[in-house]
Amino acid sequence: MNNIIYLDNNATTKTDEKVLEAMMPYFCENYGNPSSMYDFAKQPAQAIKEARGKMKDFFNAANEKEIIFTSCGTESANTAIRGVLNMNKNKRHIITTKVEHPCVLNVYKALEKQGYRVDYIGVNSQGELNLDELKNAICEDTALVSVMYANNETGVIFPIKEVVDIVKSKNSETKVFVDAVQVAGKIKIDVQDLGVDLLGVSGHKFHAPKGIGALYVNSKTIITPFVIGGHQERGLRAGTENVPYIVGIGKAAELAQDSLYFEATEVKRLRDKLEKGILKNVFNARLNTGLTNRVPNTTNIGFEYIEGELILLHLADCGICASSGSACTSGSLEPSHVLRAMNVPFTSIHGSIRMSLSRFTTESEIDYVIEKFPPIIEKLTSISPYQEELESLRLSKI
Amino acid sequence: MNNIIYLDNNATTKTDEKVLEAMMPYFCENYGNPSSMYDFAKQPAQAIKEARGKMKDFFNAANEKEIIFTSCGTESANTAIRGVLNMNKNKRHIITTKVEHPCVLNVYKALEKQGYRVDYIGVNSQGELNLDELKNAICEDTALVSVMYANNETGVIFPIKEVVDIVKSKNSETKVFVDAVQVAGKIKIDVQDLGVDLLGVSGHKFHAPKGIGALYVNSKTIITPFVIGGHQERGLRAGTENVPYIVGIGKAAELAQDSLYFEATEVKRLRDKLEKGILKNVFNARLNTGLTNRVPNTTNIGFEYIEGELILLHLADCGICASSGSACTSGSLEPSHVLRAMNVPFTSIHGSIRMSLSRFTTESEIDYVIEKFPPIIEKLTSISPYQEELESLRLSKI
Repeated sequence: MNNIIYLDNNATTKTDEKVLEAMMPYFCENYGNPSSMYDFAKQPAQAIKEARGKMKDFFNAANEKEIIFTSCGTESANTAIRGVLNMNKNKRHIITTKVEHPCVLNVYKALEKQGYRVDYIGVNSQGELNLDELKNAICEDTALVSVMYANNETGVIFPIKEVVDIVKSKNSETKVFVDAVQVAGKIKIDVQDLGVDLLGVSGHKFHAPKGIGALYVNSKTIITPFVIGGHQERGLRAGTENVPYIVGIGKAAELAQDSLYFEATEVKRLRDKLEKGILKNVFNARLNTGLTNRVPNTTNIGFEYIEGELILLHLADCGICASSGSACTSGSLEPSHVLRAMNVPFTSIHGSIRMSLSRFTTESEIDYVIEKFPPIIEKLTSISPYQEELESLRLSKI
Repeated sequence: MNNIIYLDNNATTKTDEKVLEAMMPYFCENYGNPSSMYDFAKQPAQAIKEARGKMKDFFNAANEKEIIFTSCGTESANTAIRGVLNMNKNKRHIITTKVEHPCVLNVYKALEKQGYRVDYIGVNSQGELNLDELKNAICEDTALVSVMYANNETGVIFPIKEVVDIVKSKNSETKVFVDAVQVAGKIKIDVQDLGVDLLGVSGHKFHAPKGIGALYVNSKTIITPFVIGGHQERGLRAGTENVPYIVGIGKAAELAQDSLYFEATEVKRLRDKLEKGILKNVFNARLNTGLTNRVPNTTNIGFEYIEGELILLHLADCGICASSGSACTSGSLEPSHVLRAMNVPFTSIHGSIRMSLSRFTTESEIDYVIEKFPPIIEKLTSISPYQEELESLRLSKI
């Protein structure tokens, strides 16, 4: 696949060559089982220890013991959510948001069937969390509040520190789990400053491979294991450790940490250039979020009166990878639950496109995409059944 | 780590270079999310499809849809066990064996705390399953019978087809889950011939990396998902697919399939040579299983009146990796639950060693190990507190 312009880094990322390099010795050479007693197994065990230290630094956790390696972000979420609830079986109330990732929402839907009450907090038209609604929802029975750090579709960052303050001031026993999958590698994560109880990430969103995740569990938070079996991860995640990928996510965390300034400046500059370039040249484009607090790599743009799936097809013809929502729900023609929660107007909700950059995105790629957009949109508006509406929109923009 | 003689392949195996080679394009090149819609994601999706076909062939399953990829053998077991029980909530009885892998036993211990009744079927002194006990335990309330295919410590193969016949003739609704982790790549697995409902394997026991497993679920068996979230694996295992490792386990399955004759002949020949060489040259060695039906790569030998951990230390000094039980329980000085269930005499249970070969084990390695054993055991018997017993044993062997 040559000449791909990959603007779907919120779906998954390329494994960094340096990450792959760090992993390589653990497949065919240092392949011992880290639980074995002989010297041959000590090197892999040591490599896990070092990776755990890197994840601790990445999260700014107080202690390496607060890090659990899992097989993915979804498993991190399953572990956190069920682990907290199992330890508080008398509490049956959960609060989350309407815009969580589908994988997290599906866990709550399953828990509702098991008799849990779940409140789903809304967002405003810019995708910002309704903190008053959150405050009012917390009660004595609230076992868990589960809020994502940034939304995968819009990139909007939620004020986690404020969320934690609100939750703890109303019920100090309520645990806060943060799905941080979409901020890892984009903005600094500081679990101590945030005051969260649990926080999960997925390696493949920040240039580690697919199939590895990590979960921070504050040392004062007791959870039951989700995958039950052996003593690995201090009894909190059974199964022989995936040594190469654990080394990989550690390396990816280190590289991501080192790239945060680059993300905040250069990646953001390119994202802003892309966004402005499209908004300037395409009359029926609107930024779905406005310029609210967002991760630096993501933009979500609605194109009025045309179909998003058609835009994606035309972009794909030019070698440009973008998406209309999470990869987990792709193929569905339903408008995104996130944009619906934001009340994005029906005129543009079906024509909304997410583009997400990475530190590997180049300026010439962005220039190419900016160039390709106007003719694609022009072509699609010309076949839209909403010609009158488009014409009055065009006139209003002059 | 040079000059390691690795005889602990039941703990984990080296990733085959050919497996690694097959995985490599999916890290930094074909890294698209298989759920994405654009062409760039089609190659990884196709690679998963091909790997699923290889796993289907490996199991001789009827349909590719019967294969679920998981993150490890432990997750396969958790998925199978909880998936079956969740679909049969009115049934609260489970049957398993006393000699299951600790990771499986721990799931049942957790379920006992949740109110399930669990019967643990015993084995005889050769490690063979007590089928009468199994037969008598099955009742109308039995949701699940869970029997390993071969034991990780002894290599003893259980008669799964007979187990299934017994179970189904007494209660046709009872589901049978087989932990096949220790037979994959050693003997042919044929789920249709066996008639099992669910069967799990772990990639890293047959030269795929640590961190990938597979679960066969017969199309007539409905289970709930364990890791809940996205639609991956037809809704039965959420989380972005670990494309490289799925490709890896598929390749490993293909290579293992091709090596079955080699395992049955050459690996077995070397195992037998090792076993006979030690039993012939060491007067206080006894084969813990006898010559019952075993996988071709495993031997478990007891050395009377000496400590297994000391033997392992001395072997490690010679660069030989072996173990006293499962890696998951290593470090514990308790005698193995498997050997206890077999009533291995107290005189040798503490001095029992498992050695497990692979297709990469060479004849010169086996010759070296046979040569190293007598002086190590001689040295350790000389410092044993049981000198009188050793002397009479020595005399009895002349």
